[in-house]
Amino acid sequence: MLTFVGIGLYDEKDITLKGLDAISCADRVFAEFYTSKMMGTTIDRMESQYQTKITVLSREAIEIDPSWLHHAKCENVVLLTGGDPLISTTHIDLRLRASDLGIATAVVHSASIVSAAPGLAGLQNYRFGKSATIPFPYHTRSKTVVSETPYNVILQNLANNLHTMLFLDIDRDRGCMTIPEAVELLMRVDCEREHGTPMHSALGIGIARAGSPDVLVRCDRLCDLATFDFGAPMHLLIVPASLHPLEADALVRFADAPEWIR
Amino acid sequence: MLTFVGIGLYDEKDITLKGLDAISCADRVFAEFYTSKMMGTTIDRMESQYQTKITVLSREAIEIDPSWLHHAKCENVVLLTGGDPLISTTHIDLRLRASDLGIATAVVHSASIVSAAPGLAGLQNYRFGKSATIPFPYHTRSKTVVSETPYNVILQNLANNLHTMLFLDIDRDRGCMTIPEAVELLMRVDCEREHGTPMHSALGIGIARAGSPDVLVRCDRLCDLATFDFGAPMHLLIVPASLHPLEADALVRFADAPEWIR
Repeated sequence: MLTFVGIGLYDEKDITLKGLDAISCADRVFAEFYTSKMMGTTIDRMESQYQTKITVLSREAIEIDPSWLHHAKCENVVLLTGGDPLISTTHIDLRLRASDLGIATAVVHSASIVSAAPGLAGLQNYRFGKSATIPFPYHTRSKTVVSETPYNVILQNLANNLHTMLFLDIDRDRGCMTIPEAVELLMRVDCEREHGTPMHSALGIGIARAGSPDVLVRCDRLCDLATFDFGAPMHLLIVPASLHPLEADALVRFADAPEWIR
Repeated sequence: MLTFVGIGLYDEKDITLKGLDAISCADRVFAEFYTSKMMGTTIDRMESQYQTKITVLSREAIEIDPSWLHHAKCENVVLLTGGDPLISTTHIDLRLRASDLGIATAVVHSASIVSAAPGLAGLQNYRFGKSATIPFPYHTRSKTVVSETPYNVILQNLANNLHTMLFLDIDRDRGCMTIPEAVELLMRVDCEREHGTPMHSALGIGIARAGSPDVLVRCDRLCDLATFDFGAPMHLLIVPASLHPLEADALVRFADAPEWIR
């Protein structure tokens, strides 16, 4: 049996009692941290808190050659992941591979940035449209390519008066993208569009370290967020649509938003 | 200080270690269960697991006269809620009221149906559009009024090739809406539209008891879900857009979907 156990947003205390029960029944405990990082803890602290040995798997061992999966044919195997498992397509694919091998699967849910971010921003969850990831630019021989997808998703959502949640890229070499980096990439796409710069003066909400004691939520014009130091990762960006009065109140009170947004 | 502690999806073991820490530091522990119900447990079992006395608050004590909030001026007060706190607008409003009284607030995040449902269905989270709630019909002297909002949200999302998550109403008298009841309400709106019945043969995904050991996920035509017995609450309905091959594979494998969806 393979049990996906979500361990939450930030540190080793974000696990549930159900997650600990699954670990205590497990013959082997694996973990992967490339789809989501636990910034507030270490493997040692997790092993101590969970009272188990954890084997950390590489991206290749999850996506290309998951030979460790064979243990789950006869043993209880737990895979620890940050956030709520199965939010990542990678885990759905892994669940299908397990099923191909005749392995039953179970899920222990956990806090996810998908639900935490709207609440921290004081925005109404049902007013979010499609979400997107802002990827790092990639380089060809002659130029740097910046993805226009997140920009287009924002425009489409704004046209429907919906908020947009933007996940920021995690790269093995370049690390976790920051909110200023993300804003700068949106601005670069914006500059190349014909019709003015709607994004430049649009509002943005930056969220840093959700789930930690020093979570930071700040709402301002995107151009002002581009120069704000949000500190350590993980970062997330929201581009809101028009604000309900309660949403504006919450942003002024809890996200240091300028008074004029009300 | 007021700390919102999310206690997860189903039973008393869905709380995090951080949530238990907040309870152990609290002078008073309140709870409300009208925005989200914990179907797999009781107050007695929560009190025993959390080792605390819990005072359950009514809707009125949360929304109209939250006099209990004054305790948080000088004491550590915890408010327990199902799911991830602050997803409910009610809690944002309460956080603003606390702030008006000069009370600092903190949040302990937890699993939410908002992230659990897409994963259980094997659907890609970023392909969800706006969500909606299907409310029970209300009755005037001369007729029964069925809200058209969820139907319109589905149509708008389908036009953009996006999935729709539909939360089902909880009513003090009528209880928790079931998936068949929700489908029947969508069909009633559908019948009154001029241009055929696109919804009748559309796919739906019903999810019952997310977070429990007997979670049930079933994908079929909406008209077939209308006669399927999903068992005990809570129920949730998803109307998917066109399916990515991986999504279709997951639905066939884990949600008993008909083979022709591939």
